[in-house]
Amino acid sequence: MSKHPVVEYTSEASWAMVEDKFSPYAKETLSKLIKFMEDEVYPAIKVAHAQIPEDPATRWKTVIPIVEELKSKAKKLGLWNLFLSKATLSGYAVIAEILGRGGHFAPQVVNCSAPDTGNMEVLARYGSPEQQKKWLVPLLNGEIRSSFAMTEKNVASSDATNIRTSIKREGDEIVINGHKWWISGAGDPRCKIHLVLGKSDPGNKSAYQQQSIVLVPADTPGVKIIRPMKVFGYDDAPEGHCEIIYENVRVPLGNLVLGWGKGFEIIQGRLGPGRIHHCMRSIGAAQKALDTMLQRVTDPAKKTFGKFLYEHGTVVADIAKSRAEIESARLLVLSAALQIDKYKAKGAFEGDRNSQSGILNVLQFVVPSMALEVVDRAIQSFGAEGVSQDQELASTWSGLRTLRIADGPDAVHIQQVGLKELKRVPALVQREKEMKKKQAILMEKAGIKAHL
Amino acid sequence: MSKHPVVEYTSEASWAMVEDKFSPYAKETLSKLIKFMEDEVYPAIKVAHAQIPEDPATRWKTVIPIVEELKSKAKKLGLWNLFLSKATLSGYAVIAEILGRGGHFAPQVVNCSAPDTGNMEVLARYGSPEQQKKWLVPLLNGEIRSSFAMTEKNVASSDATNIRTSIKREGDEIVINGHKWWISGAGDPRCKIHLVLGKSDPGNKSAYQQQSIVLVPADTPGVKIIRPMKVFGYDDAPEGHCEIIYENVRVPLGNLVLGWGKGFEIIQGRLGPGRIHHCMRSIGAAQKALDTMLQRVTDPAKKTFGKFLYEHGTVVADIAKSRAEIESARLLVLSAALQIDKYKAKGAFEGDRNSQSGILNVLQFVVPSMALEVVDRAIQSFGAEGVSQDQELASTWSGLRTLRIADGPDAVHIQQVGLKELKRVPALVQREKEMKKKQAILMEKAGIKAHL
Amino acid sequence: MSKHPVVEYTSEASWAMVEDKFSPYAKETLSKLIKFMEDEVYPAIKVAHAQIPEDPATRWKTVIPIVEELKSKAKKLGLWNLFLSKATLSGYAVIAEILGRGGHFAPQVVNCSAPDTGNMEVLARYGSPEQQKKWLVPLLNGEIRSSFAMTEKNVASSDATNIRTSIKREGDEIVINGHKWWISGAGDPRCKIHLVLGKSDPGNKSAYQQQSIVLVPADTPGVKIIRPMKVFGYDDAPEGHCEIIYENVRVPLGNLVLGWGKGFEIIQGRLGPGRIHHCMRSIGAAQKALDTMLQRVTDPAKKTFGKFLYEHGTVVADIAKSRAEIESARLLVLSAALQIDKYKAKGAFEGDRNSQSGILNVLQFVVPSMALEVVDRAIQSFGAEGVSQDQELASTWSGLRTLRIADGPDAVHIQQVGLKELKRVPALVQREKEMKKKQAILMEKAGIKAHL
Amino acid sequence: MSKHPVVEYTSEASWAMVEDKFSPYAKETLSKLIKFMEDEVYPAIKVAHAQIPEDPATRWKTVIPIVEELKSKAKKLGLWNLFLSKATLSGYAVIAEILGRGGHFAPQVVNCSAPDTGNMEVLARYGSPEQQKKWLVPLLNGEIRSSFAMTEKNVASSDATNIRTSIKREGDEIVINGHKWWISGAGDPRCKIHLVLGKSDPGNKSAYQQQSIVLVPADTPGVKIIRPMKVFGYDDAPEGHCEIIYENVRVPLGNLVLGWGKGFEIIQGRLGPGRIHHCMRSIGAAQKALDTMLQRVTDPAKKTFGKFLYEHGTVVADIAKSRAEIESARLLVLSAALQIDKYKAKGAFEGDRNSQSGILNVLQFVVPSMALEVVDRAIQSFGAEGVSQDQELASTWSGLRTLRIADGPDAVHIQQVGLKELKRVPALVQREKEMKKKQAILMEKAGIKAHL
Repeated sequence: MSKHPVVEYTSEASWAMVEDKFSPYAKETLSKLIKFMEDEVYPAIKVAHAQIPEDPATRWKTVIPIVEELKSKAKKLGLWNLFLSKATLSGYAVIAEILGRGGHFAPQVVNCSAPDTGNMEVLARYGSPEQQKKWLVPLLNGEIRSSFAMTEKNVASSDATNIRTSIKREGDEIVINGHKWWISGAGDPRCKIHLVLGKSDPGNKSAYQQQSIVLVPADTPGVKIIRPMKVFGYDDAPEGHCEIIYENVRVPLGNLVLGWGKGFEIIQGRLGPGRIHHCMRSIGAAQKALDTMLQRVTDPAKKTFGKFLYEHGTVVADIAKSRAEIESARLLVLSAALQIDKYKAKGAFEGDRNSQSGILNVLQFVVPSMALEVVDRAIQSFGAEGVSQDQELASTWSGLRTLRIADGPDAVHIQQVGLKELKRVPALVQREKEMKKKQAILMEKAGIKAHL
Repeated sequence: MSKHPVVEYTSEASWAMVEDKFSPYAKETLSKLIKFMEDEVYPAIKVAHAQIPEDPATRWKTVIPIVEELKSKAKKLGLWNLFLSKATLSGYAVIAEILGRGGHFAPQVVNCSAPDTGNMEVLARYGSPEQQKKWLVPLLNGEIRSSFAMTEKNVASSDATNIRTSIKREGDEIVINGHKWWISGAGDPRCKIHLVLGKSDPGNKSAYQQQSIVLVPADTPGVKIIRPMKVFGYDDAPEGHCEIIYENVRVPLGNLVLGWGKGFEIIQGRLGPGRIHHCMRSIGAAQKALDTMLQRVTDPAKKTFGKFLYEHGTVVADIAKSRAEIESARLLVLSAALQIDKYKAKGAFEGDRNSQSGILNVLQFVVPSMALEVVDRAIQSFGAEGVSQDQELASTWSGLRTLRIADGPDAVHIQQVGLKELKRVPALVQREKEMKKKQAILMEKAGIKAHL
Repeated sequence: MSKHPVVEYTSEASWAMVEDKFSPYAKETLSKLIKFMEDEVYPAIKVAHAQIPEDPATRWKTVIPIVEELKSKAKKLGLWNLFLSKATLSGYAVIAEILGRGGHFAPQVVNCSAPDTGNMEVLARYGSPEQQKKWLVPLLNGEIRSSFAMTEKNVASSDATNIRTSIKREGDEIVINGHKWWISGAGDPRCKIHLVLGKSDPGNKSAYQQQSIVLVPADTPGVKIIRPMKVFGYDDAPEGHCEIIYENVRVPLGNLVLGWGKGFEIIQGRLGPGRIHHCMRSIGAAQKALDTMLQRVTDPAKKTFGKFLYEHGTVVADIAKSRAEIESARLLVLSAALQIDKYKAKGAFEGDRNSQSGILNVLQFVVPSMALEVVDRAIQSFGAEGVSQDQELASTWSGLRTLRIADGPDAVHIQQVGLKELKRVPALVQREKEMKKKQAILMEKAGIKAHL
Repeated sequence: MSKHPVVEYTSEASWAMVEDKFSPYAKETLSKLIKFMEDEVYPAIKVAHAQIPEDPATRWKTVIPIVEELKSKAKKLGLWNLFLSKATLSGYAVIAEILGRGGHFAPQVVNCSAPDTGNMEVLARYGSPEQQKKWLVPLLNGEIRSSFAMTEKNVASSDATNIRTSIKREGDEIVINGHKWWISGAGDPRCKIHLVLGKSDPGNKSAYQQQSIVLVPADTPGVKIIRPMKVFGYDDAPEGHCEIIYENVRVPLGNLVLGWGKGFEIIQGRLGPGRIHHCMRSIGAAQKALDTMLQRVTDPAKKTFGKFLYEHGTVVADIAKSRAEIESARLLVLSAALQIDKYKAKGAFEGDRNSQSGILNVLQFVVPSMALEVVDRAIQSFGAEGVSQDQELASTWSGLRTLRIADGPDAVHIQQVGLKELKRVPALVQREKEMKKKQAILMEKAGIKAHL
């Protein structure tokens, strides 16, 4: 029995779980992707980083040459827009793990990076033909990039109803005023379009129908990029996470997406698959960190006190725990993807404790924390080199750290999962009551007196 | 789409993972089992406990009436020896979780309790026709019970080569001398046969061919049950975990199992499925504890300071974590069972990091610890009642605690998983080397100097 | 420089912290106590356990001979009622750690066991001369024992205002009706007096003036001991933790303690020193578990796979963590005791985040959890023997587990500490505001524009 | 009773522990320091950061104006070189916590920053009069800065015997060749002197007498600063952590410190107080993070879903745990400082489990991990702002993260503490043996048979 090469990068357990969801064609695509990553993409990552100048004057104007070259190659190989392919979500999840081993760049190379993926899905599902022609087509071609402007400064944005940016119709135009930050990708010279979420109907009695989404070309007058936000010292140039002021920004009425008051509906639909994507990329990053750690602790050049690093203290136990935690998390995400595939129609999930949203909340608070822990152990095994620019570990850690915040803080997801569990109580109480009734009969029959 | 009732007890995620491994017949059996548990078994557990007298004089002579009644019913319903059925291991795993909600008794009722399951498998696979007729048949009928005498007093038994019990041939007889303890089930009046592991060839140069297994009827002269060992104050009467001295115990030559020096081979084969079984039962116990906790923290009678318990502090977060941890562990065990089903032939597993043994070691150190944590949280939600005889939680916890020791301490499994991971290093180093070669070419081409 | 023997049992760090609080006499008493423990008490513990019969008929009528002998010896040596001596609380804390190494019995031997200590303090501080003569004197002499009846069945007792037991005056008598459980010590034949907390004025508008405490002789008609509650299978006979119904129990008016409505005040005063006591005993138990573990993992008879246990996996790390955790906890408790000594007058603590109550809440959620963890590691190092009756570890663990509940669940203490911290906010905000003002001036002076 | 202002920044518990070690003068100095920090230093931190240009061309040539101003003020106030004052180490520890609230800059302002403090101690204790005149005096005056060149590239430097830099005498000169990295402070234009550790006698049979330390002026030909190392993206300019090649660097013979082969002795003496210093600074950083978090979670502007942040999920519990963990760690460090003060003479510590080195190892693996956890919780409470340049939290976290590596990785300290504990075993075994003997006599006397 010949093994698929993906097993070397992931695990037999997970492959056994999803293999039968892969058509022969999908298996071949996966093989091709892995080969492309090994031959071209993974070796190019250091080069890509080096092609971003330190000088603030040019840093933010960079289109990284090697990334553009690789994009052409990927397109020719048919390794392009894989997230949109007819493959199942569980199938793409496996791909996302492979991409997650290649940092920021691997997903770009195959046109599968956030926030473009989510934006393309929005435009494909909700965009007008004109919107699609103007923005979706070049996005699908990898000619431009995009950003999603949601988070606002000085607003507790884990509660989307707090959004303050104003979106108003004035005649044939829409006028946007707001102060956003952490708008990922907006620093990139290739970023040509912002999807801006704001309040168009603040008086609406439904808190979920007050928001709309508008397409704002990046070069519209009034779009002011204030500064890049840094994450633990990293600015992630040229994409960046920008603070942006939208000041009296005017766009034509046709730039409204889906309709007035549809903002909340759009962001809800955008979240689900996105969570699977970034969770699987996190798992790829964690698995890669473990692979790196394994090499470090067996490196004869790093012996101390006459022993390999792995012969000291808790190193072997740390490795074992990492292996177990990665495997558990991977199965959890794949199982969520399988469920979504199974019950594709949205309706099938609602009101169920194992619903899309419940299980996705679980992923959200489990996976990034797990990955952070695994990467931190790898950092520790590298000593000072681990926190430095000479290993990817510190920047990987830093990127993962934002995932505990970006999509709502852990606490929100934990709370939602807990409250969803509480919804099972009436059924449990009913079951217990029936059990107790039967028990009472049996107790009496057996002549036993109960204390409770 | 109508849901299988098992989803109420387990989760949609896990059912989505294994549903297609269930034939319609298997699904029906599972439904029948759940109904039987709900109608007859779960309500009988308190009765069963009450039917064990406190008085030491009669306590150890008890055959629990209600358990025997239920066994008859189960047999009639075809819910019998389910572990041996043609169903897959992943299929039985789901059943084991349901049984795990019913403490000691539920598995007994359907003739699926340890150590009988393992012993029946040994006799079915390795027993002679005479041995099978004499011991396997009544075991399969639930007429007798059995024990497996391996662990020895004052011997570090996580290393089986340390075993000291002597097994010697003298003419047509085998003579056994040894001091065992923690022999589960040996206190039970129904326990009629011991499978005793000892050293028959201590001089053999292979440490793994020195051991043999011999069948010792419980009433053979020289079999001395010294005392029951207690686990956190529980004696688990009438089965118990006994200290036993075998003093010049003589049995006929025909009581040797499989052959001289085959002891190690037999215990190895015995372990794999057993681990899946007790891990899934542990998950059932944990899920039940969570279900119990959910009811407690929403009980209006338990409000403090004007609030439901779940409205205080970290209760909701504890519930969410428990849900996530149970789900992860469940998927891990099911995925291990799926793998074993897939590569049934033993050979397919060896030498692979994801092999039966590797993944089973992962289960072993992950699942009991997880279940202990979940049950401990439930205990905490019950306050003093949680540690008492009025809830099953404390005894459940105590039983789970032994699983971190019984099948080798956690540390052994952790170590094995870690060392198995280290075996991946040569392949990783090779891959890295090739990547670095390609990277160097790209770096040069791009005119970049590297620091490392 | 000669070292005090206490350093061998505790640590230099803690001794450096409190040594100057010990007078030469106190140092000598401490030496004498340690010698008495080593020579007489610690070696007697196994004997004491063995002198409690298993037979339910006699088990609860036992006065343990060796304990009574040791009490006489202790009294002669002046090692008696040490908790009441003129020594500081920090001084007694050190003693309590030494006693904590001797399980249930060591504190009894020197007349320092709960709940007698708290009850004696109550009677000494609040008792009438008659009450003192009748109950305090024999308690101080160790002739009788006592219990404190507070916790009620089916009542969330971590909120003492939930108490339902009724205490009513009828003429010259007080009539008590209530259903209590977990009344420690009430099973003991020597237990002659119950301090019963109940509601005497349920209509009082202050929730803290509705309760009174009444002295109820154990043999008063209507005092019905229903059953002993078990803790993880242990009944802790003969003292036990009893379920008790008080049914129309009548006592003379003179049995009211302090006055009507003073119940809450009395229990508040009772808690503080008691927490220091049981926390230090827990630390003694944890330190003893670590000492035991150290011996186990270096025992040549327990080698596995050719290595000492300490040479495997994470054992050394577990030991190091245990050492660090015990030391931290010990310093925390001693520092709390020092504070109480320093600000003896109650008033000095109130309204301060480091107050008696704040720091005592910290101890309450930190120390028992720490001790449980340390003991659990020791159990693990002993394998199956660790959970059994052959080591004290399992029963020690079980006793410690109740401390996370008995004095209010962890969650309550955590909540209180957190809320107390929040009280610091106004001062912090003020400080921050002033800092920001100065910062703004400096920023302007330096010609820097701020983003925030 | 009026409280010392330090209590507002630390805790009553810790102040109760050390107050009597403070003379009235020391108390006054402490008050003065706190006032200076509040009035001048803390408000200047943002300014200081802003005065470091982003432009790589000037960034590393910066002498921060506001820091130099504050140094003058501090000197005038007598708040200068406090680490060297006659105060006790426990006294300075309290000061170090206050300084730790002020990031990199507060310690510089009072001339108490690493690595200068350690270097000044080395020069004061071991330097020749010429060395002291030339380097110690300007260091004490804060006119120059210094670095300590120990860690080497591609060398497992947690084992100092691995050092490879060569130090050779050639006539009247010393020639140094080596490749160092992570040399903190070497990027600073004020850094005028490097203390370089290397091997002068690699053939010496004692691994601890092969090393020497040589003073190398920063402008000596052959001293090549290659690049700054980054820590999680931060370069910590202008001080930096530099990679340096020493290529045929020649200095006069008089630049040898203490004598040939004395390198190891010098670094050992350098470590102890340094650990107390950075542990207390870490505690200051953690306490400040908690103070910041408290303000955030009570900020009305950050309400979500109608509630304050502290009313959600586990926030209050996180605060309580942080409070408890900071307090424990603080007491641990202060108690270590008290011990060092008490047994000043080095001899008193050796061979004792509670020795300087043992307890310092405990601090080393407990304190930074604790502080990281506390800061991480604070980051989480700030959401995206927490990981950004707008709060100090992320850079604080990043600095703390290196402490788990810089002074030897956690694992080394854990191992040393564990092994030190094992040294107690012979005494424990002896004690246990004597106890067992006495127990056996008592058992026999009481007529009890033992199982073990």
